[in-house]
Amino acid sequence: MKLVVHDLLRARHIEAFKKITGEQFVISDEESLTHYAHDETEDLHYMPEVVIKPRTTEEISAILKICNAEKIPVTPRGAGTGLSGGALPHLGGVLLSTERMNSILEIDERNLQVITEPGVITEVLQNAVKEKKLFYPPDPSSRGSCFIGGNIAENSGGPKAVKYGVVKDYVLNLEMVLPNGEIIWTGANVLKNATGYNLTQLIVGSEGTLGIVSKIVLKLIPLPKHDLLMLVPFYSAENACAAVGAIFRAGYTPSALEFMERDALDWVSKFVESSTIKIEDNVQAHLLIEVDGNNEEVLVQDMEGIATIAQEFDCGEILFADNAQQKAELWKLRRRVGEAVKSNSIYKEEDTVVPRAELPVLLRGVKEIGKKYGFHSVCYGHAGDGNLHVNIIKGNLTDEQWSGSLKDGIREIFALVKKLGGTISGEHGIGLVQKEYMDIVFNTSQLRLMKEIKKLFDPNNILNAGKIFDV
Amino acid sequence: MKLVVHDLLRARHIEAFKKITGEQFVISDEESLTHYAHDETEDLHYMPEVVIKPRTTEEISAILKICNAEKIPVTPRGAGTGLSGGALPHLGGVLLSTERMNSILEIDERNLQVITEPGVITEVLQNAVKEKKLFYPPDPSSRGSCFIGGNIAENSGGPKAVKYGVVKDYVLNLEMVLPNGEIIWTGANVLKNATGYNLTQLIVGSEGTLGIVSKIVLKLIPLPKHDLLMLVPFYSAENACAAVGAIFRAGYTPSALEFMERDALDWVSKFVESSTIKIEDNVQAHLLIEVDGNNEEVLVQDMEGIATIAQEFDCGEILFADNAQQKAELWKLRRRVGEAVKSNSIYKEEDTVVPRAELPVLLRGVKEIGKKYGFHSVCYGHAGDGNLHVNIIKGNLTDEQWSGSLKDGIREIFALVKKLGGTISGEHGIGLVQKEYMDIVFNTSQLRLMKEIKKLFDPNNILNAGKIFDV
Repeated sequence: MKLVVHDLLRARHIEAFKKITGEQFVISDEESLTHYAHDETEDLHYMPEVVIKPRTTEEISAILKICNAEKIPVTPRGAGTGLSGGALPHLGGVLLSTERMNSILEIDERNLQVITEPGVITEVLQNAVKEKKLFYPPDPSSRGSCFIGGNIAENSGGPKAVKYGVVKDYVLNLEMVLPNGEIIWTGANVLKNATGYNLTQLIVGSEGTLGIVSKIVLKLIPLPKHDLLMLVPFYSAENACAAVGAIFRAGYTPSALEFMERDALDWVSKFVESSTIKIEDNVQAHLLIEVDGNNEEVLVQDMEGIATIAQEFDCGEILFADNAQQKAELWKLRRRVGEAVKSNSIYKEEDTVVPRAELPVLLRGVKEIGKKYGFHSVCYGHAGDGNLHVNIIKGNLTDEQWSGSLKDGIREIFALVKKLGGTISGEHGIGLVQKEYMDIVFNTSQLRLMKEIKKLFDPNNILNAGKIFDV
Repeated sequence: MKLVVHDLLRARHIEAFKKITGEQFVISDEESLTHYAHDETEDLHYMPEVVIKPRTTEEISAILKICNAEKIPVTPRGAGTGLSGGALPHLGGVLLSTERMNSILEIDERNLQVITEPGVITEVLQNAVKEKKLFYPPDPSSRGSCFIGGNIAENSGGPKAVKYGVVKDYVLNLEMVLPNGEIIWTGANVLKNATGYNLTQLIVGSEGTLGIVSKIVLKLIPLPKHDLLMLVPFYSAENACAAVGAIFRAGYTPSALEFMERDALDWVSKFVESSTIKIEDNVQAHLLIEVDGNNEEVLVQDMEGIATIAQEFDCGEILFADNAQQKAELWKLRRRVGEAVKSNSIYKEEDTVVPRAELPVLLRGVKEIGKKYGFHSVCYGHAGDGNLHVNIIKGNLTDEQWSGSLKDGIREIFALVKKLGGTISGEHGIGLVQKEYMDIVFNTSQLRLMKEIKKLFDPNNILNAGKIFDV
């Protein structure tokens, strides 16, 4: 599948890269390259021609200057946990890994900010600020292995987004290297900014197509002192979705509100060999609901209020996690659903997002479309945000159906999402595998503006070319 | 001062505009034009050649098509409450007022969203959603007269921003008309979005230079049930600023944390003829502190905790507002400081913003620079966000100093702001009057990117040309 678009990557380039980073950080043996040929997207592999591991902003700049002059494709990569193929080097060329840029530069307790390099693991960052009683909320399921830089590229979310917002809501300022090697900051280290166009927010979620982020300034908030967690079974998946909207309309803002279809919880329980959950035969779905804050009594009242609403939607017996271990166990189950599905079957994951109250309609539609095209799906996700991960299982589909007619089914799902006021990715990005569906949610005017922005930042189209769209 | 850059606005254009909107909404008599010649920025006046008041997106589109074809300058205008000259028609041409686009189209209680036209007064919108127990927090001081569309153009803030964020944090999706007349939506009506570049956030704060916003989808949150307010006098203005940082470091997040120098509160008390406040002789500044939430007991505890911190910074006797009337009175005083200063003297308002803990350094620096250049300043603003409005009073300065050497003083203030990690506008925008200072915070690479974005959206440079920067 590797598309060779140039034959410029020659020995002299490799030598020049080695001069920049030191010899041991320019890698081209096949075994190492294979490691960088895939991320977590389906079963896709594309070999890079060389992997470079710079340590500093200036090294990135020097590398990009060469690649820009010689029109060598560059694919930036964080930890390779992405689900839309953003880090796949599908054009060969240079894979630029930020793994050595892994220092937290400063935790500013006076201003509640952290300055970090992009190659820091998200959970490492969260734990470091937690020690200072500070909180960086965005927590994708992969937080134990993903990099904060990748989170910025994809505008990641995670369970806490429902109360605390997504990555974009915490990014104050970015240092980035433009494709021509110029180094800029996108904004200032402030909470409010009305000074020119918001370059910072243009870069967040741009999937490494406009520049390579080399330093990150994030807003922090005080760490909430307490949290409570409960798992609520429902006899109807649509009822579970409907309860979500009702909880918010009643004035509650949970710190997490996660939906899992029966299969999701079933499969992950087996996958991690957990015996925590006994699922009644006729249960169809669960909501995992967390509240957090500084006053435990208030949180208990909130949980009771939310439980009362859940009961109006015909729920089963609620499991209140009553110690840290049980909470950790429930969260582990939720976080590892994706892996469990992957271990069960080849699958495609669609990252649909709709206005929250439309979730029951979306879920019903997905199942109907599945019947029509003959696929089984396992759905779960961040219901509080209207963000439903639709995992399409290969199961008995033929290879022909899998890479052929299934695309029509996916188009139908996305057309429904669009009709409901939603869009085709909530937190995974478009990358390589969703770009063929962009026309469903954007018309030519919108796409023209985006493509012209890309050209303006990257006139030679060297940086993560062919991701999001073809220019 | 009017700069005539074209002689194209002829009778045939006026006739064409009248066909689009109806005759009575195309206005060119001098008295009416004079009303649209100024906003709230200093004492600046620029006459437009014609004022057009479209009612629909399609009418805006038809008007822009003509102006784009004929290269006629267009200045979009909301309520004209801006403080950076963004709505001043300094090139003549067409002034396009959104005042007739004043309908709230839908309050979606199921999804906690509102869809509105741009010409709705911010407070009208806030009250409409409040009736449904919903909350749209951003509340600039001018909220009783400014338009929501103008708030989006300037990425407005206001007192609540410290807890709830600024306008950009509530904008989900925008319908806008591009300078060539094309109509697009910038995103989707969802809380999370990782689908292509974030055009929505590129438009928020772009001061009407990239397109004219015609419909707005805003996120709402549940309305907090209670709030408490206190006014804390300090014997040192720097101590008041220092207390701000300490309150956050102790884990409190007030819903407002406003700073006022002695003169600000003194002047506004006289201006609104209020006898609520008796200021002790040696008091130098006040903090106005609000907390909100659903549990009154918790709020009382928070207020006590915050008061204890304030006492560590040598505060005077705290005034706790103990009824709705007293709260309203204190907020009226805070909201009308700007008007009070304006009624006292010609002044220039600088909208500085720094990381919160740097406020005492900024305040000291402003006073030192004032001494050097011979000007008095009255400072107040959103201390919780590090957003300090520096009002430079003309006082005894000569006209020569006022339009000459004072600029060097302003440059020194902005250079200090930059050094402290801040920037030159937190919520007022750059518009016409701050653009000469953009080079202090942006280098040529950053400015080039912004200017190229402008050219991409508006190749003929018809829309609010000469605002933010000259392209």
